[in-house]
Amino acid sequence: MAVPPPARPRRLLPLCLGLFQGAVLLFSLFVTYDEPSARAEDDNLVANQLYGIFPLFQDTQVMLVVGLGLLLAFLPRYGLSAVAHNFLLLNFSTQWALVLQGLLHHFHHGQVHLDLRNLLTAEFAAVTVLISVGAVLGRTSPCQLLVMAACEVPIYLASEWAIITRLGVLDAGGTITIHVFSCYFGLSVSKALFGAARQPVHPKETPMPRSDLLPLVGMLILWVFWPSFVAVLCQPGDAQHRTILNTLLAMSASAVTTVVASSLLEKDGKLSPGHLQNGSLAGGVAIGAVADMAMLPVATLALGSLSAMVCVLGFRFLTPLLARKLALQDQCGIHNLHGLPGILGAMASAVAILVAPEDTSGSHFSQVSPVGGNASEAAGGRWGDRGAGGQALCQAAGLAVAIGGSLLAGLLAGTALRLPCLAWPPEQRCFDDSLYFKIRGQAESPGPAGAAEEGALALKERV
Amino acid sequence: MAVPPPARPRRLLPLCLGLFQGAVLLFSLFVTYDEPSARAEDDNLVANQLYGIFPLFQDTQVMLVVGLGLLLAFLPRYGLSAVAHNFLLLNFSTQWALVLQGLLHHFHHGQVHLDLRNLLTAEFAAVTVLISVGAVLGRTSPCQLLVMAACEVPIYLASEWAIITRLGVLDAGGTITIHVFSCYFGLSVSKALFGAARQPVHPKETPMPRSDLLPLVGMLILWVFWPSFVAVLCQPGDAQHRTILNTLLAMSASAVTTVVASSLLEKDGKLSPGHLQNGSLAGGVAIGAVADMAMLPVATLALGSLSAMVCVLGFRFLTPLLARKLALQDQCGIHNLHGLPGILGAMASAVAILVAPEDTSGSHFSQVSPVGGNASEAAGGRWGDRGAGGQALCQAAGLAVAIGGSLLAGLLAGTALRLPCLAWPPEQRCFDDSLYFKIRGQAESPGPAGAAEEGALALKERV
Amino acid sequence: MAVPPPARPRRLLPLCLGLFQGAVLLFSLFVTYDEPSARAEDDNLVANQLYGIFPLFQDTQVMLVVGLGLLLAFLPRYGLSAVAHNFLLLNFSTQWALVLQGLLHHFHHGQVHLDLRNLLTAEFAAVTVLISVGAVLGRTSPCQLLVMAACEVPIYLASEWAIITRLGVLDAGGTITIHVFSCYFGLSVSKALFGAARQPVHPKETPMPRSDLLPLVGMLILWVFWPSFVAVLCQPGDAQHRTILNTLLAMSASAVTTVVASSLLEKDGKLSPGHLQNGSLAGGVAIGAVADMAMLPVATLALGSLSAMVCVLGFRFLTPLLARKLALQDQCGIHNLHGLPGILGAMASAVAILVAPEDTSGSHFSQVSPVGGNASEAAGGRWGDRGAGGQALCQAAGLAVAIGGSLLAGLLAGTALRLPCLAWPPEQRCFDDSLYFKIRGQAESPGPAGAAEEGALALKERV
Repeated sequence: MAVPPPARPRRLLPLCLGLFQGAVLLFSLFVTYDEPSARAEDDNLVANQLYGIFPLFQDTQVMLVVGLGLLLAFLPRYGLSAVAHNFLLLNFSTQWALVLQGLLHHFHHGQVHLDLRNLLTAEFAAVTVLISVGAVLGRTSPCQLLVMAACEVPIYLASEWAIITRLGVLDAGGTITIHVFSCYFGLSVSKALFGAARQPVHPKETPMPRSDLLPLVGMLILWVFWPSFVAVLCQPGDAQHRTILNTLLAMSASAVTTVVASSLLEKDGKLSPGHLQNGSLAGGVAIGAVADMAMLPVATLALGSLSAMVCVLGFRFLTPLLARKLALQDQCGIHNLHGLPGILGAMASAVAILVAPEDTSGSHFSQVSPVGGNASEAAGGRWGDRGAGGQALCQAAGLAVAIGGSLLAGLLAGTALRLPCLAWPPEQRCFDDSLYFKIRGQAESPGPAGAAEEGALALKERV
Repeated sequence: MAVPPPARPRRLLPLCLGLFQGAVLLFSLFVTYDEPSARAEDDNLVANQLYGIFPLFQDTQVMLVVGLGLLLAFLPRYGLSAVAHNFLLLNFSTQWALVLQGLLHHFHHGQVHLDLRNLLTAEFAAVTVLISVGAVLGRTSPCQLLVMAACEVPIYLASEWAIITRLGVLDAGGTITIHVFSCYFGLSVSKALFGAARQPVHPKETPMPRSDLLPLVGMLILWVFWPSFVAVLCQPGDAQHRTILNTLLAMSASAVTTVVASSLLEKDGKLSPGHLQNGSLAGGVAIGAVADMAMLPVATLALGSLSAMVCVLGFRFLTPLLARKLALQDQCGIHNLHGLPGILGAMASAVAILVAPEDTSGSHFSQVSPVGGNASEAAGGRWGDRGAGGQALCQAAGLAVAIGGSLLAGLLAGTALRLPCLAWPPEQRCFDDSLYFKIRGQAESPGPAGAAEEGALALKERV
Repeated sequence: MAVPPPARPRRLLPLCLGLFQGAVLLFSLFVTYDEPSARAEDDNLVANQLYGIFPLFQDTQVMLVVGLGLLLAFLPRYGLSAVAHNFLLLNFSTQWALVLQGLLHHFHHGQVHLDLRNLLTAEFAAVTVLISVGAVLGRTSPCQLLVMAACEVPIYLASEWAIITRLGVLDAGGTITIHVFSCYFGLSVSKALFGAARQPVHPKETPMPRSDLLPLVGMLILWVFWPSFVAVLCQPGDAQHRTILNTLLAMSASAVTTVVASSLLEKDGKLSPGHLQNGSLAGGVAIGAVADMAMLPVATLALGSLSAMVCVLGFRFLTPLLARKLALQDQCGIHNLHGLPGILGAMASAVAILVAPEDTSGSHFSQVSPVGGNASEAAGGRWGDRGAGGQALCQAAGLAVAIGGSLLAGLLAGTALRLPCLAWPPEQRCFDDSLYFKIRGQAESPGPAGAAEEGALALKERV
């Protein structure tokens, strides 16, 4: 407890972040707001478009800021850090993605235009960072997380461009481009950062019973607003309606199946809070790739059930196995929530394309890609001249690109995170808010401090 | 603490739930999504309809999943169970209601159609389960709760059909069909389940000061989103606008009056958190039956105030009386929040119909019933040929059907819950999360475990 | 701990509140709902207007009821009181503002009309109360808070009339009329109430580490829904779209800059939760006055950054200075969150007007004032004949009126709060929920009570 944090790295975070904010300011000199009324005829139409997208946008914001933050706050002494770092990373990554998007895609007439849709696609880029961070939660400094975000956003944009725009993969909810990509990026970073050394269980890593209610609330917020997240960038009309229904059904099936699977796997039939917190969301991850397709409800329910099963099985068997064999650390189990259900969803999209009736109108599959391009144009009328088989192959290829690209890029990023100047927290101060937060009422040397829990723990040791 | 839970019932929950999920899958083979554009002319209109209903739908979901879950989490060691069982029951009951609705109402051309509106009416059926469960919270196993839900949903659908479709009762917000019905169903189940034995206060039943903040937050979430819940299925336009204003006013009056009543009733003028958590919502329960009528604001405010008073008085005097005289257990006080204000609301609807001016246009009373039928058609132009007096009588008859039916059905369901195979929790392990959840960091025999509170309690006993 | 609260004042709260509720009932005899279809042609248009405003209205409600409540719940033993008093004051002040608005502005034909827009402007009046209360949190009784609200609402309405309607100040988001006004009113009340006596730090004033997560969640809820709060009364169309984007950008810049500033100011580079909770919102306060103007994104980002900096600097240097020199108590630091960024925003609005290009169409600056009047009419085509310089002067004059008026009125109100009958809490029972709440499981004399934390604290003292 007496290890003083090195003085210089302390100043690194505000310095880098300040420079970044300055750079964003500079860049924003070239940005103007999009005035939708310039395109639409009247203000009324603009208002209606805004009313269509804005509630879904707000739902997405609540999910990412409150829901995901609380879901990550399952460690007893690391709640503040989990929530606050999630918030900081969301803002940093969104701004960074806006800058990159502006530089890459939108240079018309020397001006970059900004509207709610741009903001949303930038936020989707930020989501990949928030997911990846789950693999290394608690053992990394904010500086390391910022470097990770700085690396991941451009790689995501490139991978998303390759998968959606070049390959013409259908992925309305970001199953492949967001979930699979960010999962393997995060795991790869974790591997490169922690290397072959197996991490023993840290004494502060065990969640307390009481601290499990807020993560559960976080999951519930994510569960409720997930349909908005998947549907927000869909084609308005039937496709969006279908997306919402598919997501609702898949997540309902996930919730029930998680309870079944978790109870069956634990030897005394108890439910694991961790399973519940993750399995209930697995259906939302898997459904993304097929949400706007004309799926049958039975397929949706089956996909939701299956992904919850895969998620719970992953927690029970795969995570311990990977930790043992590969010394792979995955603090939040992102492989079980995002990796496995994501792969399942990608495979389901290929199957759905193969079995889809030929005579269905192409509009059922039209979609708007997360970065604003229109994938259905690239794909031609239905699957263009590639046919259903070709499109299914494309989906598989997209999955391969996402996994391969993220693993490779993650290894490089993880190696960069080993730089000593990034204030890697010492092992004995991991998982501890007091390393990053000035907690009032607590002396610098945490003794029998003001907090009851601290006090009680201290007492226990003394009595 | 050393009582081992019997081995077999442990497997019953996943087994039943798994079979249920399988049956839903089978059934869903016959379901297709409704494509609204087949009815509406263009995608734009479909999108607008979706934008109208979806935000209200999401509000309702937040209420039921997060708000109600937290409101129930007022027991110090039963928070996880309260929130998680609420979540599981919502999903189970919604799916079950969808299946039953499909079987009963929507068999056209061998296909069942599904849209957001169906989902909402199924969720309303689930709400009755979530309310009823409040009477037996903490002393029942998940298996018992599932059996209770399995019984209650079909009975609710039958009762709702009888009250709205057959009797033509006006009840836009479900005051009679949802709140009164579920309250007396729950009380009746509690009576049949626990019999005449008076339950002593359980040592784990006393809420801790700290644990009272999350239930208060749950109440606030319910309070904020209640207008959406009442208005979501109303006729768009004036009726919906009026519904929202009525609900807002009634709940505002409830909040203020609760503070008045609770302070007056406690001898030292302090406020009881339990009163505040329930009384503030009583106005929302009572306003349901009249929310879309052309009430005067003064009547709305008075109804809100009155229902809060009735609710607080119920907590102070009626609940202890019922416990003493009838040995009736009502853990969450659902009789005070749903029963008494519900009856008040039903009576108010009869009065409102009697005093409504004759020349008001009938459209003021048009409504869509919670299961999608249109009650105003059954009721004819205004009250059809039954006249205002006849309609008022109908409201009373509807109330009687709701109370009588639910009491009878609840007794039967409660008796079924006594089946020994349903894993009735032993008295000394009631109100304890550790019976249903694998709480990490806690040994099977709860000793001086990882949790500070456990530790502190254990210490206190030792010191 | 043994000081018995005086008996009579205990009954004062329910008495006053009951009389107030009765008066509102009486007044509401003269109120009818606005039926928008009387103005609009068809129900469809009414529905669309409702769908436009209602989601934003609900967002605002969540902000005020849940977000602000939790943000105030940062004191370890005062969470219940903070959340519940916030809720009570919101309802009381909204009803009071509705009554006053009805009396003052809307007397047409002997009837007062009510619609969602009226409710919103009344809620904005209530917001001023909720902000001002932050200055005296924990050292005041509910009776004192009600008197404060009763004084502040009419003064706010008068000040808002003077600033918006008479002076023609542009202030779409209420930066000057709401934030600056309520801040200086609150500080002035605090000064008049507590006088020159410097308050020592109370032993219960120190937040515990654990209790800091819920305030952080409160901040996040406010952060997410702030754009809805600023945009809800804007002109639909481009102006509203611009308002949302401006607010989003400003708050994102605030969040990042807060981390920079807080880390730089603390000598060990740690982040202060208090800074994070307030600084991240400062951008939303400052942007209000200019949100609907055609600002450049770079100016928006700069304003957000600057206000966060000013807020953090205020916490670090100005608050201790004011406490030392003026014995000014500002419990929640409202001067740093609402006062300083508010003044900054007002100055920014003057600059924005001065540098705005002449040829921009006047519609960019059209706005609807918070009380429903249309300020752009008062201001003429663009700035009318006052010109840009005149309008900028007006903004400065509005700021001066807000500060001067609130300081003066606050002194009077604060003096009224010294009345002994208002049950001023004794110093040793400040910051304690048990003075106002009947906390079950806790004896009247707080000894080794049921709560683990109490127990742990008690133990620590004994061991």
